[in-house]
Amino acid sequence: MDFPTFSLDTSLLEKAKEPEPGITYDLLILGGGPAAMSAAVYAARKMMNLAIITKDFGGQVRETSEVENWLGFQSINAKDLADSFEEHVKSFDIPVRLGTAATEVKKEADTLKVWTADGTIFSSRTLILSTGKRHRPLNVPGEKDLVGRGVAYCATCDAPFFKGKKVVVAGGGNSAFTTAMDLLKVEAEVTLVNFIKGWQSDEALQQRVKQTGKVSLLDYHQVVRIEGKDRVTAVVVKNRESEREEKLDASGVFVEIGLLPNNESVRNLVELNEQGEVIVDCSCQTSVEGLFGAGDVTTVPHKQIVISAGEGAKAALSAYNYLINKSLI
Amino acid sequence: MDFPTFSLDTSLLEKAKEPEPGITYDLLILGGGPAAMSAAVYAARKMMNLAIITKDFGGQVRETSEVENWLGFQSINAKDLADSFEEHVKSFDIPVRLGTAATEVKKEADTLKVWTADGTIFSSRTLILSTGKRHRPLNVPGEKDLVGRGVAYCATCDAPFFKGKKVVVAGGGNSAFTTAMDLLKVEAEVTLVNFIKGWQSDEALQQRVKQTGKVSLLDYHQVVRIEGKDRVTAVVVKNRESEREEKLDASGVFVEIGLLPNNESVRNLVELNEQGEVIVDCSCQTSVEGLFGAGDVTTVPHKQIVISAGEGAKAALSAYNYLINKSLI
Repeated sequence: MDFPTFSLDTSLLEKAKEPEPGITYDLLILGGGPAAMSAAVYAARKMMNLAIITKDFGGQVRETSEVENWLGFQSINAKDLADSFEEHVKSFDIPVRLGTAATEVKKEADTLKVWTADGTIFSSRTLILSTGKRHRPLNVPGEKDLVGRGVAYCATCDAPFFKGKKVVVAGGGNSAFTTAMDLLKVEAEVTLVNFIKGWQSDEALQQRVKQTGKVSLLDYHQVVRIEGKDRVTAVVVKNRESEREEKLDASGVFVEIGLLPNNESVRNLVELNEQGEVIVDCSCQTSVEGLFGAGDVTTVPHKQIVISAGEGAKAALSAYNYLINKSLI
Repeated sequence: MDFPTFSLDTSLLEKAKEPEPGITYDLLILGGGPAAMSAAVYAARKMMNLAIITKDFGGQVRETSEVENWLGFQSINAKDLADSFEEHVKSFDIPVRLGTAATEVKKEADTLKVWTADGTIFSSRTLILSTGKRHRPLNVPGEKDLVGRGVAYCATCDAPFFKGKKVVVAGGGNSAFTTAMDLLKVEAEVTLVNFIKGWQSDEALQQRVKQTGKVSLLDYHQVVRIEGKDRVTAVVVKNRESEREEKLDASGVFVEIGLLPNNESVRNLVELNEQGEVIVDCSCQTSVEGLFGAGDVTTVPHKQIVISAGEGAKAALSAYNYLINKSLI
């Protein structure tokens, strides 16, 4: 069985200019999902001097298969949609620092300074944080060591690798049940393990999964550890009622227990809510002047592509107005 | 010279079901622009029992020519974009009351009741107001009588009718200067008349217009009246400094002095700001429970297609959550 490895798309690296540490930009955009890309398009059309720092382009769009709610498309392949977004951004010749994330953002006088993992420092008068969310890990023994070798966080990306195999899905919400459906399609033997008592998924989706009669359901169970040397061989679960442990043979574990905001670079700078989301007002302004937030990393409700794209546009225009009002542009 | 007349697109009337006055819907959507259409797509995918009441589909998108900031399209014809939105909505078989606007919305117990111009009353548990904005009129003698006969509010729609003619543009902001550019393209003789002292348009756009040397600029002037019997023949303006009046020969007047929210149906129901925009929070909730607002009719900043589409999605999901929390769905 092949497991996926992380491969960096270098096509942009070859084409795009690199941002320069010596310049104070009008705007730096952190992230590469729909919010970041929409912000980039709007800022570029306002002739702002901007740069983007991101690991990659596409964000969570690249983790799904088919999109049916991007207005104007009754159905579109998610990769095609992400590609069209990326092409739109690339048409503006914006400097891009690809393959790296910002590690720290600080405000010094009127300038926002951004550190990247390799120690480079970039400067800007405004900044849009649009770094999105990532999957929450189980934090159990074996998980970290076996990522990409049986431990997976994205059914769309990885379900095909588990054709006919035994797989545990941790979680009880919509994403867990959707993952179960994806795995059933490749004829995997699926066991759903739900920590909380009572499944949280939409009733209709639960029914669809249950009606297949092919999924084992372990409600109110905890994943204790993931076993395996070179790859996953078993998952140990505990019945939270009886406290009895059980070892399940498994080649894979899909972790579908929620998302965490990628807020690391601004944790010491801006106000966050209890979930760690960056608090923004309806104009995408954060608690720090000149620093705007857009998309899933923020408190904006309902995580959706079109909402993030709208918020990105909003953040870019708010940043532009901020510079206009301060006579900085 | 031909002047445009209002023509109703009846293609949808023939195809779509009509909403029924006897039903209490989960959701009624008022309006047909990007916010309304995005809301409809999201609500339909949530299997909400919904209906739409709108004069037409497309909203202000149909008043522009080319769109360069709809993410994924470097450039797209506005009509094509509006058509693709409309097709997306039509794919869900949602009942539509076309060709009429809601005149009044009232709340009775937990039900929102909507009156249309012909006296029909529709009922719903939630409502999304997404009726957009319209052009602000000058409110001077002659204006109302000569609409469509020389008085125009949309350069994209009507500039071609004034090829080689003398035209007055009332306004001093970006839309006034953009209108001037559109008119120059059809070789019209343009006079810009600005009520406020000092032009409000972006400097770059002003420069582009001024550099043509083909536009007369009357700053701090008031349009006093529009003259003409069957069609516009002259515009009387007054220098607000010297108080001196002057009659300008003109075949057309483009009124570009801002937009007004289409809030008539909810004026007696929800809280509005000083500009008459419906006040919404970041979840699109208005001051009335169960009543949501989306797009240009609301206080959302930066009027843009992608922002309105995002807000429409947000409003639909907020309405859905409201019904879930009230156990009404």
